[in-house]
Amino acid sequence: MAEPEVGLDTMARFLGDANVEGSRAYLNQLDPELHRYITDFVYGQVYAGDVLDPKTRALCTVAMLACTGQQLQLGVYVRSARRQGASEEEIREVLRQVAVYAGFPSAWNALATTKRALADFDEGAS
Amino acid sequence: MAEPEVGLDTMARFLGDANVEGSRAYLNQLDPELHRYITDFVYGQVYAGDVLDPKTRALCTVAMLACTGQQLQLGVYVRSARRQGASEEEIREVLRQVAVYAGFPSAWNALATTKRALADFDEGAS
Amino acid sequence: MAEPEVGLDTMARFLGDANVEGSRAYLNQLDPELHRYITDFVYGQVYAGDVLDPKTRALCTVAMLACTGQQLQLGVYVRSARRQGASEEEIREVLRQVAVYAGFPSAWNALATTKRALADFDEGAS
Amino acid sequence: MAEPEVGLDTMARFLGDANVEGSRAYLNQLDPELHRYITDFVYGQVYAGDVLDPKTRALCTVAMLACTGQQLQLGVYVRSARRQGASEEEIREVLRQVAVYAGFPSAWNALATTKRALADFDEGAS
Amino acid sequence: MAEPEVGLDTMARFLGDANVEGSRAYLNQLDPELHRYITDFVYGQVYAGDVLDPKTRALCTVAMLACTGQQLQLGVYVRSARRQGASEEEIREVLRQVAVYAGFPSAWNALATTKRALADFDEGAS
Amino acid sequence: MAEPEVGLDTMARFLGDANVEGSRAYLNQLDPELHRYITDFVYGQVYAGDVLDPKTRALCTVAMLACTGQQLQLGVYVRSARRQGASEEEIREVLRQVAVYAGFPSAWNALATTKRALADFDEGAS
Repeated sequence: MAEPEVGLDTMARFLGDANVEGSRAYLNQLDPELHRYITDFVYGQVYAGDVLDPKTRALCTVAMLACTGQQLQLGVYVRSARRQGASEEEIREVLRQVAVYAGFPSAWNALATTKRALADFDEGAS
Repeated sequence: MAEPEVGLDTMARFLGDANVEGSRAYLNQLDPELHRYITDFVYGQVYAGDVLDPKTRALCTVAMLACTGQQLQLGVYVRSARRQGASEEEIREVLRQVAVYAGFPSAWNALATTKRALADFDEGAS
Repeated sequence: MAEPEVGLDTMARFLGDANVEGSRAYLNQLDPELHRYITDFVYGQVYAGDVLDPKTRALCTVAMLACTGQQLQLGVYVRSARRQGASEEEIREVLRQVAVYAGFPSAWNALATTKRALADFDEGAS
Repeated sequence: MAEPEVGLDTMARFLGDANVEGSRAYLNQLDPELHRYITDFVYGQVYAGDVLDPKTRALCTVAMLACTGQQLQLGVYVRSARRQGASEEEIREVLRQVAVYAGFPSAWNALATTKRALADFDEGAS
Repeated sequence: MAEPEVGLDTMARFLGDANVEGSRAYLNQLDPELHRYITDFVYGQVYAGDVLDPKTRALCTVAMLACTGQQLQLGVYVRSARRQGASEEEIREVLRQVAVYAGFPSAWNALATTKRALADFDEGAS
Repeated sequence: MAEPEVGLDTMARFLGDANVEGSRAYLNQLDPELHRYITDFVYGQVYAGDVLDPKTRALCTVAMLACTGQQLQLGVYVRSARRQGASEEEIREVLRQVAVYAGFPSAWNALATTKRALADFDEGAS
């Protein structure tokens, strides 16, 4: 498989088939180069490896986004973690631990984002 | 089991039996209250839950410490992740992903810390 | 006094008697475990000590939340600092100093949060 | 020229003549001391130097604000960079590079801020 | 008093008379402009106000430097806080609270810096 | 030119011909995958664009690394900025401005790193 195809495939696995087109359209209007970096490098290279199982990888992404306070992207990856088989309680357990490493407000904000992201998710279930 | 005992037990699981006494002596001379918070709250409460399997938990800790640039504690948890069954390659895969969320210098520094921490670990194997 | 009671007592001192029930209900729907950590550890342990006078402690909290850019929690603690006897001018002086240590945008954002938090506070005066 | 005049002059160059009065009124109601620091120190001292050409200086400001995630001030300086002669494409190239040093979410958020800031700017052209 | 004199006076109060000359020589060889900013703006303006008592101000500085992980400057201000009348135990209480807002590793690192800074201080007592 | 060749070429321009082999050997022993990401993505994609002139790009990199406190990589890019034609005084002017956006300790640390990096550079002149 050529690199861009690997990227789209991996993106579909983590973001959900139904969300790839919308995500790409959003990124493309934001910046076509950033879109290309995300497709080819982030999904085509970094996420494409099979050393980590996808559920562990998505939970580590959740941990990273909570520690850096990136709520928009955290919402996306909380849903991705559910899609890879993580339970809501496992996600919450990762976020409680954020209190230890990045402080209670970071954990609190991340849990608020998670609550919103999963309310929609359980309704939409995509 | 009373709370302090749960904490010491959990600490032993994550830091290795042989390292508990030394870690506690170090923390105690640093600050007896911080020592107590770490034993009773961090290990007695946060780490004591069984929702996450210990390997996933340790890899999420590695992700958090790499994103916050805490090299001293990262060295400790890279060894802890190995102790919980994560391979060196799995740890490295988490840290490569740090480049995506916290930038390349954070990934680079974390991989340098990991190399040093595991060089000692494979010799000492504790 | 048992630990949970110490926590609730200390919470009432810092957040205001009238706000304890609402804060706890909010935290509980967010995450019952985080709620428990905040009651038992943050207020039952860390804030319960009497080494620092409450006004100095609240001003240090304001300093920490402004430097970490946590606007939601900063609004809560700006009101708490007023409740412990800090004048609005003292709070502003702490936040001006944030410009020196975390940059002008952090000071600016914190002063905007403070203005909003105290507008409500002087009306409601709780 | 006395120091406050240098500051106002420099502020006008970077923020646009038409925006000085509004910016000062905003800062003054936020905090008169912070207002004075920004006029006398930030613009009267730091920005007043002529070692860096204004376009390079404004692009470096854009880089700094994107890395620290300060969206409000970033919007102001994206317009300032345009005013100093930077093309939209040059600004975007700086922000793509933010992905390398502060992670993809920081680059993404900064590009979203830029899109909004320049949509208004090209209409208003001030 | 002219502004530069206010700055040197305030610097002497916070850093200790005996340390002013050495600090200024260090800053001057680092960068003469940064030296001037620190004398005229940081000490001549921000620290010169009398709204906050010097002990509270120094403890807030300690809080800010611990949250931003700036160990070099933290060592200087831990000594400054002692000079303004804060006890070692009060400083430690501020730093324990850092665990709540910026995570345990930040508190831990700050307590290690404090231990070193005060070991020298109690010997030298300047 | 194929992508890896573009990457090596761009790397040579920014790091200096004489330093490419050493840098690659260092990165390769650190982590072969990170090495590949840096060659193919960072230099082969992000730095390879010609929208920004290399001097402006290197100064923006200096700004980013100073704001994120990455001293090791900052030393490398201070030298790179000199190689692209930035004067030492231009670099210092960027770093003084870091005081405004990320606080004085970040500016101070970056100027100390710069002093060390350029002391070697002017001797070695590579």
